[in-house]
Amino acid sequence: MIYLDNAATTNIKPPSVYKAVERSIKTLSANAGRGAYDLSFLCAKRIYETREAVASLLNFSSPERVVFTLNATYALNMAIKGLIRERCHVLLSDIEHNSTLRPIYKLKDEIGIEFSFFNSDAEDLFKEIERCVRPETKAIVSTLASNVSGKEISLEILSKIAAKRNLTLIVDASQYIGHKAIDLSKTPCTALCAPAHKALFGIMGLGFCVLSKNTDISTLVEGGSGNLSKTPYMPPALPERLEAGTLPLPAISALYEGIRYIERVGIDEIAEKSKKTTGLCCDAILSVPGNVVYGNNLGIVTFNMKGLDSETVCSRLNDYGICVRGGFHCAPTVHEKLGTYDFGAVRVSTSYFTKNSDVHALARALKKISKY
Amino acid sequence: MIYLDNAATTNIKPPSVYKAVERSIKTLSANAGRGAYDLSFLCAKRIYETREAVASLLNFSSPERVVFTLNATYALNMAIKGLIRERCHVLLSDIEHNSTLRPIYKLKDEIGIEFSFFNSDAEDLFKEIERCVRPETKAIVSTLASNVSGKEISLEILSKIAAKRNLTLIVDASQYIGHKAIDLSKTPCTALCAPAHKALFGIMGLGFCVLSKNTDISTLVEGGSGNLSKTPYMPPALPERLEAGTLPLPAISALYEGIRYIERVGIDEIAEKSKKTTGLCCDAILSVPGNVVYGNNLGIVTFNMKGLDSETVCSRLNDYGICVRGGFHCAPTVHEKLGTYDFGAVRVSTSYFTKNSDVHALARALKKISKY
Repeated sequence: MIYLDNAATTNIKPPSVYKAVERSIKTLSANAGRGAYDLSFLCAKRIYETREAVASLLNFSSPERVVFTLNATYALNMAIKGLIRERCHVLLSDIEHNSTLRPIYKLKDEIGIEFSFFNSDAEDLFKEIERCVRPETKAIVSTLASNVSGKEISLEILSKIAAKRNLTLIVDASQYIGHKAIDLSKTPCTALCAPAHKALFGIMGLGFCVLSKNTDISTLVEGGSGNLSKTPYMPPALPERLEAGTLPLPAISALYEGIRYIERVGIDEIAEKSKKTTGLCCDAILSVPGNVVYGNNLGIVTFNMKGLDSETVCSRLNDYGICVRGGFHCAPTVHEKLGTYDFGAVRVSTSYFTKNSDVHALARALKKISKY
Repeated sequence: MIYLDNAATTNIKPPSVYKAVERSIKTLSANAGRGAYDLSFLCAKRIYETREAVASLLNFSSPERVVFTLNATYALNMAIKGLIRERCHVLLSDIEHNSTLRPIYKLKDEIGIEFSFFNSDAEDLFKEIERCVRPETKAIVSTLASNVSGKEISLEILSKIAAKRNLTLIVDASQYIGHKAIDLSKTPCTALCAPAHKALFGIMGLGFCVLSKNTDISTLVEGGSGNLSKTPYMPPALPERLEAGTLPLPAISALYEGIRYIERVGIDEIAEKSKKTTGLCCDAILSVPGNVVYGNNLGIVTFNMKGLDSETVCSRLNDYGICVRGGFHCAPTVHEKLGTYDFGAVRVSTSYFTKNSDVHALARALKKISKY
């Protein structure tokens, strides 16, 4: 099998990640922060160390403000609905995933917020965003990279404008984190949300939200918090306030080792390799007559083949044991921009573990599938 | 280590559960329902088989109405907030966990619902609940067993009253499922919520909500659903409507094997063993002069030792390598009933894998700790 759907979930993890999960389910199977016994403390310690690992990766000084969730979608819902609580205008990038678009539509229906999109392709993005900010704008919600095209949006610019205009800034780092460095001490935001199971090499079942200091956030979910049991409300302190119920310790243990692996290899080495592999993929795709490439960045190459719809291409590649994704990738507005709204596109996505031979196999298969 | 905190998370799982997780992270690391390739289909198949396993365990005919969540708390929040959407009166048991109490308080603050409690100790529970139902009552929210005392509340009675009065019935099966049989074909409810990591022998990071037919439910979280990507709303069909983003496949694989194990052993055999072990624990605890037992059921024995507060007892037992839980167990109203609201209680909780020698070790340690 040649797996090229890593932007959805990385298929190959570092050996230390597999070992961490195995060890966790056998030796750390207890509730953290709920029992006054050694094993419960050990579980709490591993969770805190993982908060520290996330904070360290992002150069963020407050591990206790790293909040764990089921996935990035839950993290984004928590941030969007917890931080935007009154009628206002929200500015979005025009390449958002449904994990931000749909919660925003919900807020529109529920509390009457308005929203509009800035053009992520603008030559001067700073000016474009400034142009789109209205007097009643209270928040910017933006991805740092499109899950369809790999197109980046500068956190530096977003962060500067948010600071200047005193706006809440919620960013979706799902397709950026683990690919390139993020420094929250230099480019802060109100909330950064991400999954563990993509380029951070964790397993499915974990996401997180990193909340800046002095963030007053309402809760999306309430329940047992392990402390202050007698009050009818969630405790005020993070992370407990936002983490109701039992945490997914096996997935947290995996994330810990995933981040440690990235730190050992170095994020720059990962970025460099990703650039090379994506370049190779792009060349392979473009070597087939009639193929059109729409995006090529951060491990993602998106394209269509002449005369074949995207789902058919995926299905044909599957016959060669190659896993890629077609269709709309839960991101309708990106396809409007790319001109693929009516038929979708094929996304190839690599990881640090993608081999050159995988790309060669893709090239061979595409040539066989092509009608031109 | 002698682990007696199984009502929080079971520590020992069947070997097939460990193997399932290991296999899943190595061979099923891809997004289900998002890609048209074999591995994605295999992932989707394993998820659907697990929905079937849950449905089969509950004698429930619609696997597609088994919705996966991070934990039971999320499942309860989803059900409570998704099903109770207008001002009304909600009836609760008086032995609820904060995972139902706190969402109910949130609804009180947000949409002005009223709520009151029925007495779970009433001699005639049917009459007691009927007495508490008001003309404006729209829903009953009740645990099937207290996490503090193991006290049961009959689903048969709840189900009968809900049908008779046309009420929404949301039950928390966290401490009941895996201990005793549940038959939703005979005792239906609107929503049954439970965690995977307790008596079902799954791992931490998974819960679920089983929704009855014809349930109109609003969403707590929105995001990518893998289909109908172009619409701004979650698709209407279950389970996609309520499962935004990537599902925790390793934890789902674990649950599948956990349930299969229970089916192989037989739930009656499990219930019988649990009764014996709980009885032994209770005897061990009562053999120490001055000890008071408050509850003794479904693997749970709750007690206090004369002259020692509950956290101190836990800490002292920890010196003997014994893991139990003190304090308030995120369930304040139960402690009001038990008369332990001011000081909490010690909870010992067993599992199918608890050995008699574990109970003997507990007995020896308690005798050494006791001042009487």
